[in-house]
Amino acid sequence: MEENCVVKVGIVGGTGYTGVELLRMLVNHPEAEVVVITSRAEEGLRVDALYPSLRGHLNIRFSHPNLDVLAQCDVVFFATPHNVAMNLMPQLLELGTRVVDLSADFRIRDHKLWSKWYGEPHACPELLSRAVYGLPEVNRAAIRDAQLVACPGCYPTSVQLGLLPLLENNLVDEQRLIANATSGVSGAGRQAKIDNLFAEVSDSFKAYGIPGHRHLPEIEQGLGDIAGREVSVTFAPHLVPMVRGMHSTLYAELTDSAVTLEEIQSLYEQRFEDEPFVDVLPAGSHPQTRSVRGANHCRLAIHRPQDRDTLVVLSVIDNLVKGASGQAIQNMNIMLGLDENAGLTTVAVMP
Amino acid sequence: MEENCVVKVGIVGGTGYTGVELLRMLVNHPEAEVVVITSRAEEGLRVDALYPSLRGHLNIRFSHPNLDVLAQCDVVFFATPHNVAMNLMPQLLELGTRVVDLSADFRIRDHKLWSKWYGEPHACPELLSRAVYGLPEVNRAAIRDAQLVACPGCYPTSVQLGLLPLLENNLVDEQRLIANATSGVSGAGRQAKIDNLFAEVSDSFKAYGIPGHRHLPEIEQGLGDIAGREVSVTFAPHLVPMVRGMHSTLYAELTDSAVTLEEIQSLYEQRFEDEPFVDVLPAGSHPQTRSVRGANHCRLAIHRPQDRDTLVVLSVIDNLVKGASGQAIQNMNIMLGLDENAGLTTVAVMP
Amino acid sequence: MEENCVVKVGIVGGTGYTGVELLRMLVNHPEAEVVVITSRAEEGLRVDALYPSLRGHLNIRFSHPNLDVLAQCDVVFFATPHNVAMNLMPQLLELGTRVVDLSADFRIRDHKLWSKWYGEPHACPELLSRAVYGLPEVNRAAIRDAQLVACPGCYPTSVQLGLLPLLENNLVDEQRLIANATSGVSGAGRQAKIDNLFAEVSDSFKAYGIPGHRHLPEIEQGLGDIAGREVSVTFAPHLVPMVRGMHSTLYAELTDSAVTLEEIQSLYEQRFEDEPFVDVLPAGSHPQTRSVRGANHCRLAIHRPQDRDTLVVLSVIDNLVKGASGQAIQNMNIMLGLDENAGLTTVAVMP
Amino acid sequence: MEENCVVKVGIVGGTGYTGVELLRMLVNHPEAEVVVITSRAEEGLRVDALYPSLRGHLNIRFSHPNLDVLAQCDVVFFATPHNVAMNLMPQLLELGTRVVDLSADFRIRDHKLWSKWYGEPHACPELLSRAVYGLPEVNRAAIRDAQLVACPGCYPTSVQLGLLPLLENNLVDEQRLIANATSGVSGAGRQAKIDNLFAEVSDSFKAYGIPGHRHLPEIEQGLGDIAGREVSVTFAPHLVPMVRGMHSTLYAELTDSAVTLEEIQSLYEQRFEDEPFVDVLPAGSHPQTRSVRGANHCRLAIHRPQDRDTLVVLSVIDNLVKGASGQAIQNMNIMLGLDENAGLTTVAVMP
Repeated sequence: MEENCVVKVGIVGGTGYTGVELLRMLVNHPEAEVVVITSRAEEGLRVDALYPSLRGHLNIRFSHPNLDVLAQCDVVFFATPHNVAMNLMPQLLELGTRVVDLSADFRIRDHKLWSKWYGEPHACPELLSRAVYGLPEVNRAAIRDAQLVACPGCYPTSVQLGLLPLLENNLVDEQRLIANATSGVSGAGRQAKIDNLFAEVSDSFKAYGIPGHRHLPEIEQGLGDIAGREVSVTFAPHLVPMVRGMHSTLYAELTDSAVTLEEIQSLYEQRFEDEPFVDVLPAGSHPQTRSVRGANHCRLAIHRPQDRDTLVVLSVIDNLVKGASGQAIQNMNIMLGLDENAGLTTVAVMP
Repeated sequence: MEENCVVKVGIVGGTGYTGVELLRMLVNHPEAEVVVITSRAEEGLRVDALYPSLRGHLNIRFSHPNLDVLAQCDVVFFATPHNVAMNLMPQLLELGTRVVDLSADFRIRDHKLWSKWYGEPHACPELLSRAVYGLPEVNRAAIRDAQLVACPGCYPTSVQLGLLPLLENNLVDEQRLIANATSGVSGAGRQAKIDNLFAEVSDSFKAYGIPGHRHLPEIEQGLGDIAGREVSVTFAPHLVPMVRGMHSTLYAELTDSAVTLEEIQSLYEQRFEDEPFVDVLPAGSHPQTRSVRGANHCRLAIHRPQDRDTLVVLSVIDNLVKGASGQAIQNMNIMLGLDENAGLTTVAVMP
Repeated sequence: MEENCVVKVGIVGGTGYTGVELLRMLVNHPEAEVVVITSRAEEGLRVDALYPSLRGHLNIRFSHPNLDVLAQCDVVFFATPHNVAMNLMPQLLELGTRVVDLSADFRIRDHKLWSKWYGEPHACPELLSRAVYGLPEVNRAAIRDAQLVACPGCYPTSVQLGLLPLLENNLVDEQRLIANATSGVSGAGRQAKIDNLFAEVSDSFKAYGIPGHRHLPEIEQGLGDIAGREVSVTFAPHLVPMVRGMHSTLYAELTDSAVTLEEIQSLYEQRFEDEPFVDVLPAGSHPQTRSVRGANHCRLAIHRPQDRDTLVVLSVIDNLVKGASGQAIQNMNIMLGLDENAGLTTVAVMP
Repeated sequence: MEENCVVKVGIVGGTGYTGVELLRMLVNHPEAEVVVITSRAEEGLRVDALYPSLRGHLNIRFSHPNLDVLAQCDVVFFATPHNVAMNLMPQLLELGTRVVDLSADFRIRDHKLWSKWYGEPHACPELLSRAVYGLPEVNRAAIRDAQLVACPGCYPTSVQLGLLPLLENNLVDEQRLIANATSGVSGAGRQAKIDNLFAEVSDSFKAYGIPGHRHLPEIEQGLGDIAGREVSVTFAPHLVPMVRGMHSTLYAELTDSAVTLEEIQSLYEQRFEDEPFVDVLPAGSHPQTRSVRGANHCRLAIHRPQDRDTLVVLSVIDNLVKGASGQAIQNMNIMLGLDENAGLTTVAVMP
């Protein structure tokens, strides 16, 4: 790593799971160096005291969020809950800093829709149009030129990649899509809540948010963009007793029964042929979430049970990697003209 | 317990999980006594040597399967893989023994359909019509008079109970039903398979059998009976890294948008009002599988997301209890005129 | 159950895991009825809204703690953190109420020692001598006559039962005892702490409290009583990624090498022969915690590796049952002259 | 990576967990390339069909074990059960191939002792003296010159690193050592055994092998070498419901009470100061196995509870990495004069 070409990285909100996940990958990134990590709660603490996995890899302490320091970074990641990034964004963009926001603040273009689902006014609706939705498989060119990238949520990443070729090619009824999705518990973040205790979650399974989950409008916006018209999705998230991993089981009705499964399989393979992080499995496969644990890949499989008209697409990602921090680094790589794979080459830990 | 009224119980195939689960409940059944448990592989071994949880509760050894001994029982349970019960059934029925079969041998009325899914001819198709499908919430009267009860599979139990009121009342499109179901690993039985090793299953999630699962024809037969016409179900089973528990997320399209969620909630509550083991949760609930861990209950919740026309019904059971051994004992209680709750009063273990 | 002989039970602090565990067993207790459950935080809420596993078993709401109401109970359980029971105890005992305290308030006889480990003065040191330490295998007679029983902690129960025969018979060096113990996460209670989140605990293992754990003085007091002199224990607790279960691996140096393992095995079997809830496994066994999951048993196995002088005793309990609520009910049964097994007959859930 | 300096690697027995773990790390090793992986059972199958985590990283099939092909490798790893490597070793060594054996075949110098514990004669006792025991922290110089390195077992690695400074400095009673160790289930390998099924292992904890485990003689040999005299260890392994991770809790009696914990802490820090993969945590720490999940580190913490004379050392590794495949690669790096960290830089996956 040559000193003169190192990308200086800042991270706002480094104590959560997406924060440590950024660090896990960035400390081995050949062209980036993390120079500042902020945390109000843990200011002054060594980062590796909170995350001993980083001992020997990172010699830095949590610092108070400070705009001047962040502005000296080449890129700043927000690994914060919603309603943080949007308050600092006007000043950061003004200063010319490039930003990758992992939070929900800039994912929804319509600020009224955002407010409806997030329960408060948006702090800077005028900036929403400057945010590029950071799904590289759809928006790579725009990401390259963006100053602000809004990383997709984990469920939306998994669902959109799974349905992409079908909607781009107008093969299914876009008014009757069903996304039955499951997530590991790390998706709930590192917050002290009884509901997420080991003794509450372990050896059990449940749905949640069936009446309405904040990722629904993002999914419908993203799929609508892909389809070129409004779509309607029934979205049912569930909690799995595992730490990482997200699995979406997607149901779509073929509009033309004559299309064959082989044709659809082939369509998927072609669509993602050049994508470094989307892997279409052989026909008949059932991807396991552990096959992407710790890795930035999305693995897909397409089925047509009993040769009827309901397609079933299976899509797995690691919710913390392709669903969050890995995709954020992928976006940074694209924005800065680096190798898109840089820092993202580790193999999934299996078993 | 008076000696003179004790029901003598035999169990064929006592080493598997449904076998030990029968024992767990029967040793505390006020009117039944297990007098014989067979196992070819473990003949002669004390049952509590294999299952130390039973130490102090049961003083018996595995014996070789023996028709004469079984015939002296008041009721015989088959806790065997498919293709065992059907070979002994002609003789047992001839001898007048009452049988509760937990296997798949007598679940499908059409022997050709059975053969298609189970890959071999049925050994006694002439007896299929004498088997009563043991879903008490549908067939209680017939079970009371049956000599042979075929206990439903775990998935079919969970799916049928969840969709029952909708199909009985012709409220949804019976051609577009979707059953997205998840099961704990005990559903795969106590067999030495690499796929079910802890190191393979833990901290991961996957679908399986999407192209076709043996419970699909049973589900469609059962729902068809309820609806009074043919139904079509897309059935997608998944494996959850937990020992017990089954969760079905059921999607159905309302045929009449004017029906309200309140009306449907009310319909479910009325339908199951007198059912001892079906519990309709308050509107807006998300049942957890642990709420039925070790108990014979099915808990249901009904949703109508975004007030659109796709209903989402959530249904949880313990796959080894209401999905197998508990329902088998419930059927025995009904067949023998005992209190339907006998032996089934334990509360779910939570946490 | 005859109405006139039903034991009226009150529970203070019903929202935690030991609270719901008392309920799980008491709703099936043939001679007890829970008439009041208090919770400041959840006052007014139906108990089965918090614990759906109890739906259909219990028709009661959490109420504000009220001395008058509690005083009308035949027995009151405290399922509270330490420092609650001792503040109500003077009045309750004055009113003649019988109390089973699951907390730590009355376990240590020496109030200075208690204060050292619990960090605050004891509220009623004068009552400590009236508390009977509720380990039935040691103190059954005293429990029978007690008005106040202090239930042992989970680790102390497991360790004391495992070492009991060795210390009673003066067979090992009581100055060099080692208790290496592991607990499921439910032992940490139902409190919102980051350390106990699923994503923190799952798929990992760690020791904690090695410099000093509050159960150490209780263990040394209890073992000292058994040995008839002071003992010294190195106590190392660990956290296992499982919900329930406690396993102690106990190391003790034989003072006389001539004693054989067979003699020790025989000694254990005799000592616990009449104990309903202590089970000495055959020589060479390795008890699993799941063999007591949900049950009130302690299972023990004794080893003498390589025929050297270090004995290894394995001891398993369910930390919430024999380690807390089950033992509390056992104590209640003894105090009230009921069948000691009443309410405690359920078989461990395995698998 | 320059083609001309790439190390050609062969792996015998590539289907097990240590095999795939070698692959996970070697595909990102800057100077090594895996050119052959053998498996009798899976001959002809693409490696990434068995392990989809490797899709896109490795384009190779399992091949039949073939001495000629192996002999063309710069280094051959044996990731096999015991009793495989020793049968091929005479020929391989004759051909000049360098070998890193992950199995137990060459760990014990005394072939009679080996036979006693492994139950069969050793195939080539004359080669035992040529094997270097591959614990780099003890034998780095000898490894550098070795043709055959016998990688330590997982438990022996964890135990020896934990006790090393104490025995080197003669600080504790080497006749009364206790190693209470726990392992994740992957340690049992990828074999179809009922005992290792998810439904058997999950949510439970047990000891095993207390009467005698094959790692005991290896531990005593290794610690004896370090101490310079015979040692006696009570070794108690346990199974934890987690996939990876090994935690040893080590008990040792100080021979001189005057030595302080601070002095011992300092001794450990100095001893391992230059070791790239041994990390001494700050005093008072409790290392978690997840802090090394997927990484080649051993993390240690030293305690002296209650300031008594029993030291407690906590030692964690990933059983598949520092306990097997990572240490094997570390040994290869040393043997071939490569950077010792090469291929071993990934950060532990946490959470």
